[in-house]
Amino acid sequence: MTLAEIAELLGASLQGDANRQITGLATLGSANEQSIAFFVNPRYLTDLKKTRAGAVLISAENVSHAPCDALVCQNPYHAFAELTAHFVSVPTVANGIHPSAFVASSAVLGSGVVVAANASIGDNVVIGDNTIIHSGVVVEANTSLGSDCRIYSNVSIYHGVKIGDRVTLHSGVVIGADGFGFAPSANGWKKIHQLGGVRVGNDVEVGANTTIDRGALDDTIIGNGVIIDNQVQIAHNVVIGDNTAIAGCTGIAGSTHIGSRCTIAGRVSIIGHLTIADGIHITAGTLVSKSLNTVDSYSSGTPLEKTIDWKKNAVRYSQLDKIARRLSALEKKIKD
Amino acid sequence: MTLAEIAELLGASLQGDANRQITGLATLGSANEQSIAFFVNPRYLTDLKKTRAGAVLISAENVSHAPCDALVCQNPYHAFAELTAHFVSVPTVANGIHPSAFVASSAVLGSGVVVAANASIGDNVVIGDNTIIHSGVVVEANTSLGSDCRIYSNVSIYHGVKIGDRVTLHSGVVIGADGFGFAPSANGWKKIHQLGGVRVGNDVEVGANTTIDRGALDDTIIGNGVIIDNQVQIAHNVVIGDNTAIAGCTGIAGSTHIGSRCTIAGRVSIIGHLTIADGIHITAGTLVSKSLNTVDSYSSGTPLEKTIDWKKNAVRYSQLDKIARRLSALEKKIKD
Amino acid sequence: MTLAEIAELLGASLQGDANRQITGLATLGSANEQSIAFFVNPRYLTDLKKTRAGAVLISAENVSHAPCDALVCQNPYHAFAELTAHFVSVPTVANGIHPSAFVASSAVLGSGVVVAANASIGDNVVIGDNTIIHSGVVVEANTSLGSDCRIYSNVSIYHGVKIGDRVTLHSGVVIGADGFGFAPSANGWKKIHQLGGVRVGNDVEVGANTTIDRGALDDTIIGNGVIIDNQVQIAHNVVIGDNTAIAGCTGIAGSTHIGSRCTIAGRVSIIGHLTIADGIHITAGTLVSKSLNTVDSYSSGTPLEKTIDWKKNAVRYSQLDKIARRLSALEKKIKD
Repeated sequence: MTLAEIAELLGASLQGDANRQITGLATLGSANEQSIAFFVNPRYLTDLKKTRAGAVLISAENVSHAPCDALVCQNPYHAFAELTAHFVSVPTVANGIHPSAFVASSAVLGSGVVVAANASIGDNVVIGDNTIIHSGVVVEANTSLGSDCRIYSNVSIYHGVKIGDRVTLHSGVVIGADGFGFAPSANGWKKIHQLGGVRVGNDVEVGANTTIDRGALDDTIIGNGVIIDNQVQIAHNVVIGDNTAIAGCTGIAGSTHIGSRCTIAGRVSIIGHLTIADGIHITAGTLVSKSLNTVDSYSSGTPLEKTIDWKKNAVRYSQLDKIARRLSALEKKIKD
Repeated sequence: MTLAEIAELLGASLQGDANRQITGLATLGSANEQSIAFFVNPRYLTDLKKTRAGAVLISAENVSHAPCDALVCQNPYHAFAELTAHFVSVPTVANGIHPSAFVASSAVLGSGVVVAANASIGDNVVIGDNTIIHSGVVVEANTSLGSDCRIYSNVSIYHGVKIGDRVTLHSGVVIGADGFGFAPSANGWKKIHQLGGVRVGNDVEVGANTTIDRGALDDTIIGNGVIIDNQVQIAHNVVIGDNTAIAGCTGIAGSTHIGSRCTIAGRVSIIGHLTIADGIHITAGTLVSKSLNTVDSYSSGTPLEKTIDWKKNAVRYSQLDKIARRLSALEKKIKD
Repeated sequence: MTLAEIAELLGASLQGDANRQITGLATLGSANEQSIAFFVNPRYLTDLKKTRAGAVLISAENVSHAPCDALVCQNPYHAFAELTAHFVSVPTVANGIHPSAFVASSAVLGSGVVVAANASIGDNVVIGDNTIIHSGVVVEANTSLGSDCRIYSNVSIYHGVKIGDRVTLHSGVVIGADGFGFAPSANGWKKIHQLGGVRVGNDVEVGANTTIDRGALDDTIIGNGVIIDNQVQIAHNVVIGDNTAIAGCTGIAGSTHIGSRCTIAGRVSIIGHLTIADGIHITAGTLVSKSLNTVDSYSSGTPLEKTIDWKKNAVRYSQLDKIARRLSALEKKIKD
């Protein structure tokens, strides 16, 4: 593409050589004359000044720092995201149903559906138009997938799951396994069979090896536009509101309801039966042990220290209540 | 089923219409006239009073609050668990060995064994009667599975693993991968080949994407009746006693021995070479850094706070030892 | 093997019966007369004195405690690691390409490559000599694997990934899934397509269900000799230096660079865009929230306590800043 074509695509204002050929996107540091880079974060200003990029996506206020051609736009990061869609090339999978795949005769596949080698599609499964099922994927009976989905290799989807349109599931994702429901009894644990399903909305992306359990009675629900990173665990009957983002290694215990537009950082743990309001932010590594009703950012944990210092302070943590009582006693003594 | 039939099944006392038809189980909030719900937790009392359920499983002491027919039983939660087994319907997988599956000629399969599409069963594998192997499962050579097991799609079981009867493994489970054993050397890490196996008892359930490594020399051992949730990591030579329950995202490092009937909440981390006695409880998010010999509940971590408050307190954590020393100095000064 | 043969193999000095037949390795506690055990950790001295092992790998300074034949060596643990390679027996997988596997006609396979049942190898994939691909593995288009690799069952490798020689990937590993890149917009999250790949060096081992994402623009890079345990999450554009070891359940967020020879314990969380210098150690459960430039051991978290005590202390944590201010006020008052 030429810079002029890219400028038109993005609605950006071009400063420089309209005919420059661009063959790819790159970071400021690794770009060459045929690459386009982007500048947003001021801490990369040095990289910007030294960049060998052919052009840069940049805001009007920063354009004076660009040592190269510039595409001036209101939101360079958004423009960059837009542009990645034009340069991505996921290799195509051969059309149609591969001879080594198994598709039950009662399954109903839309037009343009691809089922790659050694995938398995169960009884009464319904798959919408243009959905691509990679190798080794298993879709169990009575499940439906919408159109324009991409289900990467070795994903496992249990029976009775409903997945919307334009959903991406990365490899190793498991949707619809039994929730962890057992009643104690004199003879050990008695299984509570999980009678609910899972409903996943439209425009959802789920990262590699993430698990989303089926509900005990009602369904587990993932709203529209939700984005979930790798190795996230979502237990039975969790409900996640539209456009919430959940970073890697986060776990959400059973029956917790999370609002819309929340941003949950990595390695967060949220215990069960809580309600988290819309728009809440939770920082990395936090244990959420109570419901959150007020829009704010929440945290827990202790700061990083050298182990030798940490040990001394950690010992004092176990004495904290005593320390606080001693302080109160001292205050009283002095007051008296 | 009629209410009378359900009452007989559960040994419950029926108050209401013996001929009422029940077609499913539901929560108090979502039930209709053909559903049966259950009431245990007092915080759902409002839901109970408003429920449209046809009937409710309830204890004698609470039955006066029920606005509908009631099945009075000693342990409504247990009765509910019992009843789920009668209403669950996991779709059947076609009998026998699917043509697209691979079963080694030396494998020995019991009567009623199902091997679904694109599963792979290695040399000398032994599988007991009525065990169901879903699509994409791989069982490597010399491994044995008992009878009445259900191995969900895309499970991976390595060679030389022994699995008991009535075991459920959910999708993505990996059993028997190498433990993380390496000796440091001048040329980097030298692999300690893992010569042990894994033994899993009877009546065990393992959640999606959980991993249980093979032992270095001796076997890794999972007792009878153990229940394990999703994304749990169990390292080499861990031993877990009968009927212990382990919730999601918990990790147990190598050679740690855990007793029977322990209840380990989600996102617990237990370091290696420890001994945890029978019946111990560990709360969510706890790091267990020493052996536990006394039956009790154990915890670590800090409470949830708004990030702005948390930052102030977290800074003080790094000063805790100094704070404690200053307090002691002050106490001494005043005493003097 | 005889003890004499083992002594020669390890360059150890033999004290005892040169003709003793050794059939396996075992721990001090479980060994019998035909087993060889090893002694390194002084806390197993009692086990050493009681062992029924035929022989023991031991250092010169400890050999007087051995109640059996001894192979005296400088580093018994290293010798033990060496010996495991001679006693390990992973069952062989049938040679060549299994008829139920799919290998694209454009794929180029070296000599001695094994592709087991129901594996799938995409277009233009290149696989080096003697690499073994277990059942259910999926390798997408344009990816290359070196020679002498072992890829265990149900691994998923995306397109455009480069993997070196002598690499072991355990079951459920996912390499090359999209990094978690999305730009906020008025209509929800806009995907940043991930245009980079993943490069994995030589002599790398990756544990079960670990995920390594592809880069956004540049590649995610795993150096030579890196060892990674189970359920580790490595986000896009992470760079890991040679011979670093990462234990189970650790997560590393995007664009963080980790040096060589670091040892990162289990359940560590490292936030994004940090730099961790060579040789740093991080203890289990630590949240790393800043770059680390000085070689040392680092930690965070609070010690394990009985829940009843922990609750009292945890409440005080939320008051820590106030406690510190009260102490300062008191110090000032007394000074005045």
